[in-house]
Amino acid sequence: MNAYLARHVPITQAMGIRLRSFDAAGVTMTAPLKPNINDKGIAFGGTLASILALSGWALTDLVLREAGEAADVLIAVAAAEYRAPVAGRIVARCPLPPAEELSAFLTAYRLRGRARLKVEAFIETKAGPAVIFHATYVARRPLTASEPGKRRGGAKGRSPSAERSEHDGGPQRQDP
Amino acid sequence: MNAYLARHVPITQAMGIRLRSFDAAGVTMTAPLKPNINDKGIAFGGTLASILALSGWALTDLVLREAGEAADVLIAVAAAEYRAPVAGRIVARCPLPPAEELSAFLTAYRLRGRARLKVEAFIETKAGPAVIFHATYVARRPLTASEPGKRRGGAKGRSPSAERSEHDGGPQRQDP
Repeated sequence: MNAYLARHVPITQAMGIRLRSFDAAGVTMTAPLKPNINDKGIAFGGTLASILALSGWALTDLVLREAGEAADVLIAVAAAEYRAPVAGRIVARCPLPPAEELSAFLTAYRLRGRARLKVEAFIETKAGPAVIFHATYVARRPLTASEPGKRRGGAKGRSPSAERSEHDGGPQRQDP
Repeated sequence: MNAYLARHVPITQAMGIRLRSFDAAGVTMTAPLKPNINDKGIAFGGTLASILALSGWALTDLVLREAGEAADVLIAVAAAEYRAPVAGRIVARCPLPPAEELSAFLTAYRLRGRARLKVEAFIETKAGPAVIFHATYVARRPLTASEPGKRRGGAKGRSPSAERSEHDGGPQRQDP
């Protein structure tokens, strides 16, 4: 995952974002304060939003992989509540959603090739969560050359209009 | 503003974020796609969240400056709806809120030394808005050496617990 991010999402390297763990507690990602500092000497809100969005994206991706599925995962909606400044190392935690939600997500994905997962994540500090983040991710079955008919218009997903033409009713599709 | 961001929020330089204009239409900020690309070859959602949060922060700050006020501006809450991928140059627009809301904001700030402004911003593409963003910013009168009693505890605003001790009821305080 870290090699993948380093290679494919270069700004995460400028931010120093690293996946630290994925286990029963969910995903933990960290970043140093220094490259992410703002004018007040605390963590830049954009970095906090980025690491939170990535932690949820990683969780969704890793849950799918563990279940033997490889999906395209996109962020659909996100909301962040900034409660306190972050004045040290940045630690983002994204706990695993309840088992029944994960199970419903995987079942829906296997049935329809598309499903949504809601996650909650937060920036951890000694004084408690500094930022609380809620987001919904969409998992889509990756398109292969053998199933061109699955995407209307046959576009490669790079143009907004082509993308928008095949939505399933809600806002969607921005990779984190 | 660009020199300020370059100096004080270094990650915005890695992202190539620039303020392009502030006028009757509001704030426009841009960033090149290349340093902000993700694994799908489109703009990284964290960068989109960052430039949107910055555009609202800049708008709030510039509105205050135009009115002759210099405040600390912090993001309190933000929500983003990712509707379409961004496959080219990133353009964020944050229109000026309605005149009566700006006037109420400035009046409240002058009366209480603290006020909130809600803004809406979006990522512009030829096909329409790709990301829609709503956020609330808090403006606080900067503390000076001559008024140490205005902040409880006299902390310098770097520690979460000190910050949290003087809130006004809502979530708040992360500089963008």
